[in-house]
Amino acid sequence: MKLDDLLKQTNEWLKETGPECEIVMSSRVRYARNLKGIPFSHWAGTKQRKKVLSIIEPVLLRNSCLKNSLFLKMDEVNAVDKQFLVERHLISRELASGNSSKAVNISEKEIFSLMINEEDHLRSQVMQSGFNLNEAFRLIEKLDLELEKSFDFAYDRRWGYLTACPTNVGTGMRASVMLHLPALVMTKRVRRILESITKLNLAVRGLYGEGSEAAGNFFQISNQVTLGRSERELIDGITRIIKQIINYEQKARDFLFEDSKKQLEDKIFRAYGILTNARIISSKETIDLLSLARLGINLNILPGINIKTVNELFILIQPAHIQKIEGRVLDIEERDFKRAQLVRKKLKA
Amino acid sequence: MKLDDLLKQTNEWLKETGPECEIVMSSRVRYARNLKGIPFSHWAGTKQRKKVLSIIEPVLLRNSCLKNSLFLKMDEVNAVDKQFLVERHLISRELASGNSSKAVNISEKEIFSLMINEEDHLRSQVMQSGFNLNEAFRLIEKLDLELEKSFDFAYDRRWGYLTACPTNVGTGMRASVMLHLPALVMTKRVRRILESITKLNLAVRGLYGEGSEAAGNFFQISNQVTLGRSERELIDGITRIIKQIINYEQKARDFLFEDSKKQLEDKIFRAYGILTNARIISSKETIDLLSLARLGINLNILPGINIKTVNELFILIQPAHIQKIEGRVLDIEERDFKRAQLVRKKLKA
Repeated sequence: MKLDDLLKQTNEWLKETGPECEIVMSSRVRYARNLKGIPFSHWAGTKQRKKVLSIIEPVLLRNSCLKNSLFLKMDEVNAVDKQFLVERHLISRELASGNSSKAVNISEKEIFSLMINEEDHLRSQVMQSGFNLNEAFRLIEKLDLELEKSFDFAYDRRWGYLTACPTNVGTGMRASVMLHLPALVMTKRVRRILESITKLNLAVRGLYGEGSEAAGNFFQISNQVTLGRSERELIDGITRIIKQIINYEQKARDFLFEDSKKQLEDKIFRAYGILTNARIISSKETIDLLSLARLGINLNILPGINIKTVNELFILIQPAHIQKIEGRVLDIEERDFKRAQLVRKKLKA
Repeated sequence: MKLDDLLKQTNEWLKETGPECEIVMSSRVRYARNLKGIPFSHWAGTKQRKKVLSIIEPVLLRNSCLKNSLFLKMDEVNAVDKQFLVERHLISRELASGNSSKAVNISEKEIFSLMINEEDHLRSQVMQSGFNLNEAFRLIEKLDLELEKSFDFAYDRRWGYLTACPTNVGTGMRASVMLHLPALVMTKRVRRILESITKLNLAVRGLYGEGSEAAGNFFQISNQVTLGRSERELIDGITRIIKQIINYEQKARDFLFEDSKKQLEDKIFRAYGILTNARIISSKETIDLLSLARLGINLNILPGINIKTVNELFILIQPAHIQKIEGRVLDIEERDFKRAQLVRKKLKA
């Protein structure tokens, strides 16, 4: 597999095949691991980071979960491609910048992605469509069990897995779910609900990663606690709360549909009208309008549009994707023009 | 002809068949006349107004320009129908309100309309599509010549025709042209041009009559002076200036098309996208979006849409028209909903 092949496929987690996929876009579990006896990436010197890479790379290449993977050394990836990988949620912004000897291993359908020499020596993630933390957990356990046979991970009997940042110590696990909550936003209930969630030791972020705002009414919710409980307990804890939020969003959708259907239809159809007609459009506006279109499809207000197309567009309309599709570097004006063209083409197809 | 028959036809002046119709929507000439020896309408008592009506009505009924006309006594017209006639530019707001013995005579294709007991005893107007003051003038002269044979109009050898308001004394003529100037608005040049026009003794108003703002980038320009020059001189004077404004608008359109075609296309297509998708829409928003659609059709940016349909919608989307089409009184919310429905239906037809 080559990097440009990614452009031709839809990320597995966007296919909208998983449970509760009308409200939950995707589920993700990641493990943070470090090799015993080597300083954490930020403290490691060039030689030590090289060593980490040279130890991990061959093991990944023969892992049964990672057949036909794409292995990329970040030194050999140009700026647009790095941004492209960030946009596909395959690497972090941190991996895209800074020190040498960073690398990523991406599995065939983009279900697994493993970053080397990010904050920790090895960060493995599994993505799944819809509300499917259990399957994500099963897959990452399978991967990790195999990795454990080849590596001597930094592990303390009392603390568990040792990580660069204390917030990851213990399980080293972060389970997160990407929720689409347009009805809770429209009914102005989302803030109160998300505030109460942070009191339950869960963190909230936007669609486009750490520090990003909740564009398009997407909210990523993940566990804050990694210590003192088993992976299973943590997964079960977040699952219970996500189920409640899904329930709230469903009720808010029902309420809007009953109470102000015309207003809702107006918003959704206007969004569709702009998406299918604009000639110049920013990422931000596109994401907000696609969010309404997604809601419209799920409420059967906008028939005849494929939900997969809309999901895919959330990724495709980002700056590096637009440039990859066009095969050249574009300035903002050109991107806004090409973005509008792409959205029209995809939605009218 | 009945009042409700008007709803089934397009006003002649909207058919976009006249000269320069891409920029000039319509041309209009009106004459103000009063019967000698009877006080002006505002000073006349009930009996005198009745007398005016009883003198004028039979004469109009046998005028050769007014065959198969609709003759309406305003006392017998309900509020929605009055508003409907105002919206079609067939009567003034003044005729729609106030005293008794008011009436209007509307010719078959809505080319002629004659108001009785408005500010003056008789106000005759002729409407024409496009920039066609000459034809409007020819027709109103024909009408007036015939009327002169039956009436003894208040006329002073020194002052000319006597009218209720001194601003109409002399010819009693007002010639006006409805201009569509979106490019001069977009390039922010319209204010300066229109300010210089008022210095040339011309008045500027909006599409929807006296005191109305320039909604939809429509500007109605008319002569202020009625005295001391012949009708022909006044028509020639305003014609010269309108030709200049048409030239300015054309140049502004060329400039936008050359300089910022993408931005222009974006604006026009977004307007089209909202018009063909919105489920709730106000008159104001509809007018502004239709204005962009009209420009788009005239610049061949929006193909496949009939300009007549767009012109007609400027009239049809008004509150009383929406209610006449639905056949019942509607509140604002219902109108906004039915308006959106009508616009979609007409534009998608």
